[in-house]
Amino acid sequence: MASAKGLSGFPEWLPEQEIVQQEMIAGIRRQFELHGFGPLHTRSLEKVEDLVGKGETDKEIYVVRRWAAGAEDPEASLGLHYDLTVPFARYVSENRGQLVFPFRRYQIQPAWRGERPQHGRFREFLQADVDVIGQGSLDIRYDAELVRLLHDVLASLPVPPVKLLVNNRKLLEGFYRGLGITDVTRTLRTMDKLDKIGPEKARIALAEVGLDAAQIAQCLALAELEITTAAGLEQVRTLGVSHPLLDEGLSELGRVLEACRGTREGSVVAALRIARGFDYYTGTVVEGVLEGHPTLGSVCSGGRYDDLASSGKQALPGMGVSIGVTRLLAYCFHLDLLETKRKTPARVSVVVHSEARRAESDAVAQTLRSRGIACLVSDRAVAYGKQMADAERLGIRFVWFPGDPHEVKDIVSGVQSAVDLAGWVVPASG
Amino acid sequence: MASAKGLSGFPEWLPEQEIVQQEMIAGIRRQFELHGFGPLHTRSLEKVEDLVGKGETDKEIYVVRRWAAGAEDPEASLGLHYDLTVPFARYVSENRGQLVFPFRRYQIQPAWRGERPQHGRFREFLQADVDVIGQGSLDIRYDAELVRLLHDVLASLPVPPVKLLVNNRKLLEGFYRGLGITDVTRTLRTMDKLDKIGPEKARIALAEVGLDAAQIAQCLALAELEITTAAGLEQVRTLGVSHPLLDEGLSELGRVLEACRGTREGSVVAALRIARGFDYYTGTVVEGVLEGHPTLGSVCSGGRYDDLASSGKQALPGMGVSIGVTRLLAYCFHLDLLETKRKTPARVSVVVHSEARRAESDAVAQTLRSRGIACLVSDRAVAYGKQMADAERLGIRFVWFPGDPHEVKDIVSGVQSAVDLAGWVVPASG
Repeated sequence: MASAKGLSGFPEWLPEQEIVQQEMIAGIRRQFELHGFGPLHTRSLEKVEDLVGKGETDKEIYVVRRWAAGAEDPEASLGLHYDLTVPFARYVSENRGQLVFPFRRYQIQPAWRGERPQHGRFREFLQADVDVIGQGSLDIRYDAELVRLLHDVLASLPVPPVKLLVNNRKLLEGFYRGLGITDVTRTLRTMDKLDKIGPEKARIALAEVGLDAAQIAQCLALAELEITTAAGLEQVRTLGVSHPLLDEGLSELGRVLEACRGTREGSVVAALRIARGFDYYTGTVVEGVLEGHPTLGSVCSGGRYDDLASSGKQALPGMGVSIGVTRLLAYCFHLDLLETKRKTPARVSVVVHSEARRAESDAVAQTLRSRGIACLVSDRAVAYGKQMADAERLGIRFVWFPGDPHEVKDIVSGVQSAVDLAGWVVPASG
Repeated sequence: MASAKGLSGFPEWLPEQEIVQQEMIAGIRRQFELHGFGPLHTRSLEKVEDLVGKGETDKEIYVVRRWAAGAEDPEASLGLHYDLTVPFARYVSENRGQLVFPFRRYQIQPAWRGERPQHGRFREFLQADVDVIGQGSLDIRYDAELVRLLHDVLASLPVPPVKLLVNNRKLLEGFYRGLGITDVTRTLRTMDKLDKIGPEKARIALAEVGLDAAQIAQCLALAELEITTAAGLEQVRTLGVSHPLLDEGLSELGRVLEACRGTREGSVVAALRIARGFDYYTGTVVEGVLEGHPTLGSVCSGGRYDDLASSGKQALPGMGVSIGVTRLLAYCFHLDLLETKRKTPARVSVVVHSEARRAESDAVAQTLRSRGIACLVSDRAVAYGKQMADAERLGIRFVWFPGDPHEVKDIVSGVQSAVDLAGWVVPASG
């Protein structure tokens, strides 16, 4: 990471790290586009009224005002978005007449949350979101498609294995209602904290919500289940609870697990304790943790939201998932899991024989660029050894000596050989 | 542009426009990387003290605070950056021990200015910046390289021809000093407004700065000059002013014009009225306007800054240019200059014969994706004509009919033919 003089919670990468980040983003984009999701950008600022009341992030919102503006400034009501789902839903609602549904988009942008900075928690962070929004309805197969896509994208990245934990809000709500619990929302929120607070504190909190001992025991029993196959979901039935919403949730969750058949064992599991913090989720929910690093928190998440984009009489249900690019990268850099050797996109450094002959080197560079080869011309017409050292410091492997014939030195192998300017290409191994 | 329900000054593109924007960004990145500039991202928020006092943008700064924070919150002193030069200079200054100089980077991020929204003026807009910063010194050839690169990148984009206007602050300052003018800064700022206010108002304003009639006449005579070759700069001498800084400025400006030899005639001219608004420029300045559309204002700009990144005893002079991606695109969309037909990256839509046979179509899509072909599967197993119409609405040209043999219909030509799933590629014309 760049200098510690920076602002806490606002990470900035070094050039060699940024190259890795851009490669990761390119890999994510490529997968999203292969699946027919198009790029989209929304503005960074939303009306504060559209940001608040969606969950427990209200107090973390950054509001903005113009330096010059007085207190009565109408823009005092703008804030930086804390996720990409809320802006996307607002965008779809505003532009529904010009969109083709089901509308598939991906969006890679920063988001801001005024959290207390700590390990893995940032105040400005890059997210890569992919969502589909339907008009009127959206089949459960889209939930399945997006969870599977999330799995496949993460598996394609040079990061440690991710374990996806899936669940379904309908299943939870049905289970709670089947138990006779009335305050479903507070029960959900309490259960969502189970991993953090542990079963003992959860028992106390659930009692405060009004649950009796039997209800609490059932909630905790459900939360303990981790199931890997659609057939295995029958295990939930053995808890003896029944409700139409529970049936619906089980069926939907089964479809999601079904779509993930054939993935690495244990990489997608139904974890019946997962609820997710945002109030807008209505069905499928998912989050992912790096295997063996559960304390880091989730590196991806998502879910089904049926009412976020809807306006008036038209339902616009959506399903989306989000990859926490910054958190994932910060962790991999921290553990030195990613190679960060190249400090420049240039593959070749062109030697300058003398300042008087610099034009010769510029001409070589121009030809290489016209042939699609990124290159630099030496900054200093100093001794060749120094020019090579300059190239090496940037992580450049090939040094070009203009002449007749031209020669290229491979710094790694030490071999220098005559080459053809019109035909030379960067070796596949380079 | 997306819905007029949006916030004024905060443009959002429709999906088909965003695809064009992403293509433009990819083209810009490609050129920057070919020249050995690496990607970089800085945080969006800067300390307000680092943002103010750099020119006439102070009142346009957006400051932020956490929703939950009281008035004594230390973060009340953060603001959104209004350009990418100031954050970059701060980054280089903070991380100079870990960077290799001359440090070449590009940066494509939004910036924010609380300007009054009007034609071509946005409050949130995307900039593509490319800069080089030297340690101790930075040769004038980098000014020349970056102006030429700016020309070449713009010429490679599908936008109307851009006219680059270059000048040099040393030339202006030397000329003013040679005339005996003492308040150079105010004279510069007044001359910078010449295009907006016209010569009559400029005369009055310059008199207020303390210039006499002869000095004013000379300033306006200089401002009238447009020169296309290094040799042509001798014309400035005929005004009879001399000063060492004027000589230096003329020599530097000559180097920049020299580097632009061979470009389309009139696409790069020395325009001796150009000064640029930011106080941090110390030598070369450049701005670009769309030919035939001078009222739009500049679509790119840049210059040399010798003291922005420097800290303590170490000089870190820089030179950079910036392309106003949002302004350029907004204008081209407004005039309908860019084709926006494709609403999805998918090149193929796979037909679903019936819901019972959807898995067949999913399997085809999976194979196409594994072969690098972006595709979609029909949302509805309705009549083939309707499925083709769905594809067409998205701008997809090829519709795939799974079967034995598979068939592909080209919607444009109307031709449907048997194809091989393992070998078919998107035709070059498609």
